[in-house]
Amino acid sequence: MTTTLTNQQFRLAARPVGMPKPTDWKFTTEPLREPAEGEVVVKAIYLSLDPAMRGWMNEGKSYIRPVMIDEVMRAGGLGKVVASRSPKFAVGDYVSGAIGVQNYWVGPADDKTAGLYKVDPKAAPLPKYLNALGMPGMTAYFGLLDVGQPKAGETVVVSGAAGAVGQTVGQVARQKGCRVVGIAGGKDKCDFVVNELGFDACIDYKNGSVREGLKQHCPKGVDVYFDNVGGEILDDVLTRINMKARIIICGAISQYNNTTPVKGPANYLSLLVNRARMEGIVVFDYADRYPVAVAEMAKWMQAGSFKTREDIVEGLEKFPEALLMLFEGKNFGKLILKVGDEA
Amino acid sequence: MTTTLTNQQFRLAARPVGMPKPTDWKFTTEPLREPAEGEVVVKAIYLSLDPAMRGWMNEGKSYIRPVMIDEVMRAGGLGKVVASRSPKFAVGDYVSGAIGVQNYWVGPADDKTAGLYKVDPKAAPLPKYLNALGMPGMTAYFGLLDVGQPKAGETVVVSGAAGAVGQTVGQVARQKGCRVVGIAGGKDKCDFVVNELGFDACIDYKNGSVREGLKQHCPKGVDVYFDNVGGEILDDVLTRINMKARIIICGAISQYNNTTPVKGPANYLSLLVNRARMEGIVVFDYADRYPVAVAEMAKWMQAGSFKTREDIVEGLEKFPEALLMLFEGKNFGKLILKVGDEA
Repeated sequence: MTTTLTNQQFRLAARPVGMPKPTDWKFTTEPLREPAEGEVVVKAIYLSLDPAMRGWMNEGKSYIRPVMIDEVMRAGGLGKVVASRSPKFAVGDYVSGAIGVQNYWVGPADDKTAGLYKVDPKAAPLPKYLNALGMPGMTAYFGLLDVGQPKAGETVVVSGAAGAVGQTVGQVARQKGCRVVGIAGGKDKCDFVVNELGFDACIDYKNGSVREGLKQHCPKGVDVYFDNVGGEILDDVLTRINMKARIIICGAISQYNNTTPVKGPANYLSLLVNRARMEGIVVFDYADRYPVAVAEMAKWMQAGSFKTREDIVEGLEKFPEALLMLFEGKNFGKLILKVGDEA
Repeated sequence: MTTTLTNQQFRLAARPVGMPKPTDWKFTTEPLREPAEGEVVVKAIYLSLDPAMRGWMNEGKSYIRPVMIDEVMRAGGLGKVVASRSPKFAVGDYVSGAIGVQNYWVGPADDKTAGLYKVDPKAAPLPKYLNALGMPGMTAYFGLLDVGQPKAGETVVVSGAAGAVGQTVGQVARQKGCRVVGIAGGKDKCDFVVNELGFDACIDYKNGSVREGLKQHCPKGVDVYFDNVGGEILDDVLTRINMKARIIICGAISQYNNTTPVKGPANYLSLLVNRARMEGIVVFDYADRYPVAVAEMAKWMQAGSFKTREDIVEGLEKFPEALLMLFEGKNFGKLILKVGDEA
């Protein structure tokens, strides 16, 4: 049945220097192969576009191997099983996993790299499974709680506050009784995290001084900083941390497209003065506890005290330009590429 | 009795820009005042010269208040009580504390800032009380064990390996069964830490590549890095850390005299890739546990399995130039200024 279908894919054509260019991609069309015994075919519906993708395009050792030249670009996503020769998934199941920037994924149902798992379309709208109930949410939840260890009454600051990870960091911190201050670009995003998500305040880094904003909105200093951006903002926060502060290094989107060396935090000696800690996290380490986080956040969602926002771009062919939205701060909410119908 | 004596002092004349200049100091001579009720007079014998002193000369909030203009320069030291109107100390007692860059300290025996405490000249040679049995030793011991948490078989790297803190870090790590690799400037210092102190290896940063040295001497990567220097060396070590590595930020001597901004660690995203932690320490936090560390290190010293080296410069008037030895890497061992006789 599936051999009558064609698959379209974005493959890595060249390792980008700075911001990815159209010529760094190759768009290919090929017939879809039949699934072998134990394999499934997943029709992609939603693809997750994440800052980390920029890192996967670089050569060299990281927490995950780089995407190879000519390989289909890696992406998390969500789709529907349209053919199955495995007892693990039935046709019609909705699954999430690393299905790549393409219309169809074919492979073993238990493929470790893809890591497919079933999701329930009735428990939450499908895009939520790529947001708070997916990798960004897990990153936020475990990074904040396990590494940040926020206590009620403490001040938590999060950059990229309107983004996928930031939304969840702030709301989980609110649930835990913290004062939450976001940092985001533009009035709309700041209004959103304060008025819709319930942050105590938000600093608009595009229209004012982050240092002044921190002074104003963190009168008791900063106990936990969840950093998604790096660069100047990390340095600004370092000037306001409290004794024994915890800084979670989740990402550094401001630095991913540098053609010059990464800007290290010049104020890192504030860690010494304040006996503070800066620690990196990678979400995969918490895989065996994802269900705990999903259960807790789903409960808050159902109670109406936890919201998320997605920014959905339609069309596989839009992938190259949609990805750039992340680095230009143009997405408003978790950025998702819709490449197929839900039905 | 003490009014017949004069006191000579180095006071801060100006806040240095870059390396301290002779004109940043004022040398003063004044009659020594009589101790009041509850006060003691301490004749200085040894003064501790430490990289941290450069930070105390700057304006602005830090872990300790800055030295004020015209104030006697702060220094830890060791001396003999020559007059006492306090039951806490008797004439003839040897005491250690923040007695300043001067020949005599006069003040309340229980002065919190000076923090005077008695030392036993028979238990160890007096200079050891400013080295392994003093602040550098306490910094090394608690920084390594409490923050670094080294486990037997792990690889510990320490910069400034021949310096006061580095000597102790390496030897404590050896006692705990770790592989220990030092980083120091020059063949003599490297030979010393390997041949005399028992480090497994030492990288001479003045005569070769630190990155290559780390590759060669840390074949299993770096689990704990105790950083005294910052700058390029911190970045080099960050490229070699293992999963869940611990980096102790104790100082950044390479950056203290910068007239440009501090060089932040450009490779700090290695913390993310490796789920590693960078944490600052200040020795004062461990004050209530100093006796534990002193007892353990004194035991090792008596057993002959723990050595320290001091570099003693004679003459109070040498203070300005002796201090610079630290920043030029010219001291070989814990730098001490001898300003009076032991008797």
